[in-house]
Amino acid sequence: MRLSRYFLPILKENPSEAQIVSHRLMLRTGMIRQEAAGIYAWLPLGLRVLKKIEKIVHEEMQKAGAIEVLMPTLQLADLWRESGRYEDYGQEMLRIKDRHERELLYGPTNEEMITEIFRAYVRSYKSLPLNLYHIQWKFRDEQRPRFGVMRGREFLMKDAYSFDIDEAAARKAYNRMFVAYLNTFSRLGLKAVPMRADTGPIGGDLSHEFIILADTGESAVFCHKDLVDMSAPGDNVDWDDLQAIVDERTALYAATEEMHDEAAFGAVPADKQLSARGIEVGHIFNFGKKYSEPMNAAVNGPDGTQTHVHMGSYGVGVSRLIGGIIEASHDDAGIIWPESVAPFDVALINLRVGDAACDAACEKAYAALEAAGKSVLYDDTDDRPGAKFASMDLIGIPWQLIIGPKGLAEGKVEIKHRKTGERHTAEFDAVLDQLTKA
Amino acid sequence: MRLSRYFLPILKENPSEAQIVSHRLMLRTGMIRQEAAGIYAWLPLGLRVLKKIEKIVHEEMQKAGAIEVLMPTLQLADLWRESGRYEDYGQEMLRIKDRHERELLYGPTNEEMITEIFRAYVRSYKSLPLNLYHIQWKFRDEQRPRFGVMRGREFLMKDAYSFDIDEAAARKAYNRMFVAYLNTFSRLGLKAVPMRADTGPIGGDLSHEFIILADTGESAVFCHKDLVDMSAPGDNVDWDDLQAIVDERTALYAATEEMHDEAAFGAVPADKQLSARGIEVGHIFNFGKKYSEPMNAAVNGPDGTQTHVHMGSYGVGVSRLIGGIIEASHDDAGIIWPESVAPFDVALINLRVGDAACDAACEKAYAALEAAGKSVLYDDTDDRPGAKFASMDLIGIPWQLIIGPKGLAEGKVEIKHRKTGERHTAEFDAVLDQLTKA
Repeated sequence: MRLSRYFLPILKENPSEAQIVSHRLMLRTGMIRQEAAGIYAWLPLGLRVLKKIEKIVHEEMQKAGAIEVLMPTLQLADLWRESGRYEDYGQEMLRIKDRHERELLYGPTNEEMITEIFRAYVRSYKSLPLNLYHIQWKFRDEQRPRFGVMRGREFLMKDAYSFDIDEAAARKAYNRMFVAYLNTFSRLGLKAVPMRADTGPIGGDLSHEFIILADTGESAVFCHKDLVDMSAPGDNVDWDDLQAIVDERTALYAATEEMHDEAAFGAVPADKQLSARGIEVGHIFNFGKKYSEPMNAAVNGPDGTQTHVHMGSYGVGVSRLIGGIIEASHDDAGIIWPESVAPFDVALINLRVGDAACDAACEKAYAALEAAGKSVLYDDTDDRPGAKFASMDLIGIPWQLIIGPKGLAEGKVEIKHRKTGERHTAEFDAVLDQLTKA
Repeated sequence: MRLSRYFLPILKENPSEAQIVSHRLMLRTGMIRQEAAGIYAWLPLGLRVLKKIEKIVHEEMQKAGAIEVLMPTLQLADLWRESGRYEDYGQEMLRIKDRHERELLYGPTNEEMITEIFRAYVRSYKSLPLNLYHIQWKFRDEQRPRFGVMRGREFLMKDAYSFDIDEAAARKAYNRMFVAYLNTFSRLGLKAVPMRADTGPIGGDLSHEFIILADTGESAVFCHKDLVDMSAPGDNVDWDDLQAIVDERTALYAATEEMHDEAAFGAVPADKQLSARGIEVGHIFNFGKKYSEPMNAAVNGPDGTQTHVHMGSYGVGVSRLIGGIIEASHDDAGIIWPESVAPFDVALINLRVGDAACDAACEKAYAALEAAGKSVLYDDTDDRPGAKFASMDLIGIPWQLIIGPKGLAEGKVEIKHRKTGERHTAEFDAVLDQLTKA
């Protein structure tokens, strides 16, 4: 993408309304624009990151056997009356009446609707296990929306729902999502720790939140230090038997504030006790028959009797993850994107636009990198070099390729790694080769 | 995808509520499920088609220089008061109050919001031309939602918005979208005719609807027959000078009912007069300063004076297109997908699951086709062959690869082309080779 033809409205000043660094940086880099309290438009740079995260979430869901659907944003109030949650949900539910005075709501989550879909079609245990997921916009009418996309009202969530014939199978479904989440967050460049969590309005008795640690986290969390650096299990696992992997991560103490047990935490060796602030980026629930019984979602079991299915639900805050990633990865100069979610792979900086040699070298680099499958943001504007450097540091593209007349006279260009700050000058072709293979 | 592990709820009976063939077939094939009047959940098969259409729309937008953003579904009522459309829009606008009694609405279109974004950031004519687009869910509270996704309430639309310094540049922007639409619909396997159209609540004086002809079309349309088979211009065009291409398609008579001129139509040679029913799949508008003036979206022009920008907007009904494609492409046995949007490339039918040779051959075919980048729906269930054939004809995957014990004993398999109905038996490896290269 040529910057001169792009829409990248970088703000010169820090926006005063932003209280936390991710919100500030997302506004400054022109990733988002607030359109109402807690409601954001995604500008081109922000949307590129959002779509990269979505893609990774999709891939990891599908590796774990989940099947994609897409439920609508609006739902019938009557559906929520079946589960009893219509009244329970309180003011966070956005209630709507259409032109015929029918009661609708903007879905804050989809347990009821997916249960309705399941019961409409599935008759036999032979269709199980089944896990259906979607990535769709949700709405929660927060009393005080704040922190940008971290606590917005309209937000993008991945929610998956599992259906199983019994508790043992449901536990396997839960474990598949547990492992898929570890892999997902790892690919996003995050260290997410699964912690025992309260089940809140979703319900059930088994639940984990996936928490990334950040000073600006919304809640206090407590865990064994070893959990933070435990590596993700990866894809090469037996998806039907993941208990050992899950046990390894749940044997050590980890709990959110609501579930915290001072005595149990006290039993963790003192040098391993980690008490910190955390950001929830995922939450999984095993809630048995909480919805299938009142909504009568049942299948014929192997013995011919009707059985209400055991269910679970599994959420990832896709849009909030962007805030979480920035909270976890930035410095004074701006964002430092993990390569997997960076809006572009390479920032190409032309230090003297209009100089024939610089222009030609930049065009060559641009074409070669794009041909190699790298996405490039090419700064072909006539801004000062200092402003170009500052902008590219601010938006945090992993690699910067800097081409100017002095270096080029000796056949050399400069390459900078945003994360480490390391920069060196080398032969043009060698640098191109390095970047195309990166 | 193995059918035994998929979620494909094919209905045995024709749903009684569906009045038109596309609605009936989408319900029967388990593509969608109605969750409220005019509000649908997309089940796995339907979503695959929706995403394929989205991808083609994205690609053609980007070839034409449009930049992707994503605006939220909910908007502030005050924004629509700026343009004067809040009251004008009538009951089709879904009006909402949040917990603080602030007035919101579910966006039926985004002229106001994109103008607000533009005016917040763009200061100079040097940033023009600019075309920003998104694909997002919209809501129009239809009095009588019907015909499935063809006239739903919650629907997926691609809407693009162009900003230009003067009328001549705006006309070029209009032409780029005109050509992009011709290419888009052509890639979707549709013959879409651009027709002069009424501008309705969007406004402006230059507007074309893109219409596909179908007996079940919602409105009467009139055009010169030669327009129907005119081929799309393709990508190899000069995007800055498309007037000749547009002129070629607008010189011949073509108008929707609202714009119809009997006298002008009468001047078309009698054997070229086509009077038919049409389905609108796209609509483009050039409306000058209708929004930029009241909302004060202006830039500094080359002479230093502030100029309100000339705008246009360009919509494609992404979800309704699926209905349109089915209306245009089906037979008594079911849907006939154009290859570009088919939910799977190949239907693999195992006629005797459990037979070692059949199973092995199917696994080999499945692996080879997937490795070649083909998506395969593998019917590995123990249904009767007749039921398998009927289901695959119904869901309309372009190619069927049929593997049974008799043929296999001679090293042969059967291949069927859904569209032509042609089937022939050939050597297994030759058929695999044909399909992997198709």
